[in-house]
Amino acid sequence: MTKDKHRQQFPALTNKAYFNYGGQGPLPEPALEAIYGAYKRVQVGGPFSAEIGAWVAQEAMLTRRAIASELAVPPETIALTEDVTVGCNIALWGIDWHPGDHLLLSDCEHPGIVASVMELQRRFNIEVSVCPLAATLNGGDAVQVIASYLQPNTRLLVISHILWNTGQVLPLAEIVKVCHQGYEPPLAPPCQGGGQEEFSLIQSGGRTDIEPPLAPPCQGGGQEGLSVQHHQVRVLVDAAQSVGVLPLNLIDSGVDFYAFTGHKWWCGPEGLGGLYVSADALVDLHPVFIGWRGIVTDANAKPIGLKPGAQRYEIATSAYPLYGGLRSAIALQHEWGTVAERYAEICRLSKYLWEGLSELSHVECLRTSAPEAGLVSFRLTNGMPHKKLVDLLEKQGIMVRTILNPDCVRACVHYFTTEAEIDKLVGEIAIQLG
Amino acid sequence: MTKDKHRQQFPALTNKAYFNYGGQGPLPEPALEAIYGAYKRVQVGGPFSAEIGAWVAQEAMLTRRAIASELAVPPETIALTEDVTVGCNIALWGIDWHPGDHLLLSDCEHPGIVASVMELQRRFNIEVSVCPLAATLNGGDAVQVIASYLQPNTRLLVISHILWNTGQVLPLAEIVKVCHQGYEPPLAPPCQGGGQEEFSLIQSGGRTDIEPPLAPPCQGGGQEGLSVQHHQVRVLVDAAQSVGVLPLNLIDSGVDFYAFTGHKWWCGPEGLGGLYVSADALVDLHPVFIGWRGIVTDANAKPIGLKPGAQRYEIATSAYPLYGGLRSAIALQHEWGTVAERYAEICRLSKYLWEGLSELSHVECLRTSAPEAGLVSFRLTNGMPHKKLVDLLEKQGIMVRTILNPDCVRACVHYFTTEAEIDKLVGEIAIQLG
Repeated sequence: MTKDKHRQQFPALTNKAYFNYGGQGPLPEPALEAIYGAYKRVQVGGPFSAEIGAWVAQEAMLTRRAIASELAVPPETIALTEDVTVGCNIALWGIDWHPGDHLLLSDCEHPGIVASVMELQRRFNIEVSVCPLAATLNGGDAVQVIASYLQPNTRLLVISHILWNTGQVLPLAEIVKVCHQGYEPPLAPPCQGGGQEEFSLIQSGGRTDIEPPLAPPCQGGGQEGLSVQHHQVRVLVDAAQSVGVLPLNLIDSGVDFYAFTGHKWWCGPEGLGGLYVSADALVDLHPVFIGWRGIVTDANAKPIGLKPGAQRYEIATSAYPLYGGLRSAIALQHEWGTVAERYAEICRLSKYLWEGLSELSHVECLRTSAPEAGLVSFRLTNGMPHKKLVDLLEKQGIMVRTILNPDCVRACVHYFTTEAEIDKLVGEIAIQLG
Repeated sequence: MTKDKHRQQFPALTNKAYFNYGGQGPLPEPALEAIYGAYKRVQVGGPFSAEIGAWVAQEAMLTRRAIASELAVPPETIALTEDVTVGCNIALWGIDWHPGDHLLLSDCEHPGIVASVMELQRRFNIEVSVCPLAATLNGGDAVQVIASYLQPNTRLLVISHILWNTGQVLPLAEIVKVCHQGYEPPLAPPCQGGGQEEFSLIQSGGRTDIEPPLAPPCQGGGQEGLSVQHHQVRVLVDAAQSVGVLPLNLIDSGVDFYAFTGHKWWCGPEGLGGLYVSADALVDLHPVFIGWRGIVTDANAKPIGLKPGAQRYEIATSAYPLYGGLRSAIALQHEWGTVAERYAEICRLSKYLWEGLSELSHVECLRTSAPEAGLVSFRLTNGMPHKKLVDLLEKQGIMVRTILNPDCVRACVHYFTTEAEIDKLVGEIAIQLG
């Protein structure tokens, strides 16, 4: 199918140049019609009846299957959630935290996830560190940085597969490997205090550093030669920017928890996402918010256990008509090409955008080489506020967004973005910058 | 507006006799068109843009306002949630539980809520009791039963405003009053152990009593004359069956947490509900699942606090197009009459149904007097399995459901139910029972 014909299925693309796929993808017309049809179908057969109850269960099953196929995992590892943030929270809160446990977070996580971690710290008196991955965008080794921040008490690493602010793609399998190996005691002599980045919630008088120190933290020292118990560090991935972009094989990656949404790069409806939980990680991840969808009851409606797979993390009534909408959106992407072909096209186009931006005066791309995915972040060097540029562009029908940390503008390209759109964006930025 | 004309706005009502309002209400055509229009509107202006961001914030605000108006509370006390169960979980998990704290649950709560309480018990080592309200359906004093189960360490009572299984309406304000007064030490001499109904998760060898003992629990004894610290017991209400039915004034009731859904008696779309948190209760109810919607960030996107009102309990991206659908559904109900008029009509019709059922052989209504709301539960006395009757009726286009505890059939009437529908239901039951 030609790109032009493919694009005609997305009403949002007809009146603008769109570069906010990392915020929300445009909903294809067939997906909207699937949603609308599902609403009507529910009214014909129900809304509440044995017939519609069976239909809802079938819809959920088909949707878990469609998602699982994209992630190369079994359907029973998938829980449907309202959004990626709920998926992250299920993993964050489901661990049986004990005081003094350590959680390691990257410095590029979404504020909502950071806030949830801060509350975990308060609630369970755990230790939280932030490791500096932003600084590895153009060099350095993210895996090594993470490894150097692991501690004997580290239980969870929280990262994104593609960093939402800079577009960096992290080497997931290698990161999981060092985490599952667990803490290795350092060979170097113990360092002298400091180096740990910790924070506390709503403490304006506390540290307000955005970028944590680059030096690896002190590991307490003095442990060389001691018998240290190596335990697995679980890995939670915020996959908001990677699902629908990267070819994925989560089993091969070894990742424990992978939270995603359907409404960004998959172009599904907002309000539907999911969480992958590996078979191994499921064993000790307790459901937190619990409802009728996650439990098994006996003949007297008494709860007697949890659903066998990741369904145990699903809660209760959702907007079921969206399920067919997401499946329709995913199917439509396959019409254009394989995930490898789509990813290659995304990279080709983001390189084209990156090159165009790099040639502009007063524009500096955060990356010094072509992007590894569809997110292209850049800053203005002439002092114009980024918000001002974004607002001016929106008035011209060109949608990009600001990012506050690091302070920049983010433009996203999908596989169906056109060179003409990119030329328009680059040209309009040139005009606005004078 | 005549009832016939009003009913024409509900496509689900055209091809069946519908009695499952307690499961899900039929979606009015204008509500579906509002949803469909909202999806199209998002695509025209975005989907992700400053314009649509402002529209989403406005939609959420208008929806909190519309809901707040129905509950007679300020809009800032309302959090939008995916469903009633999520609302209950926010309150259940947001309390800073300590080992030995006591949670009191009625014996008529939904299995999903029971399971969440069981997990709280396991996670935080709290004490859980079940108080026998089912037995007060036709006599007895629910307030007195609850009061007798309060303990010095009780922190939360979990009840439904209208019991989903038997249709009993609980006297909310009186219950809240005794809970806010807190535990009163008994004047009688201490009892000799026993009487406490406790359970543990997935423990098939444990107690499997459905109905807890009627005798009030032992209070530990020996406390007369001691200085007992009276502390407030907070009240969480599962309002799945009361919102859209009862005239409500939550401020007057004094209730702390009131969780509800839009998709039952309000006839809104599935996947949208809310939680009311009183201004007093908000102070010490911590958000658990946290995302960008609930927090305040600084100029560097660093989380620095929580949203001032109940918005702090909202998590992240939802199916925003549903918001207008719920508002449309609520508005449509006002077209027919005031909430007092609608409630009176519900009671008139449920009495008519109850009378019709009471005249049938082999049918026994659970209530010995007319229902106080729209739920009419009955059992068959000729040994026919309830599931069989429900399935036979569904084949005739008559929708009712089974309840497993107590084992019965539940038929619901709304204000727009007709006598002809009720006659059809009663007549068909008579035929099926021979």
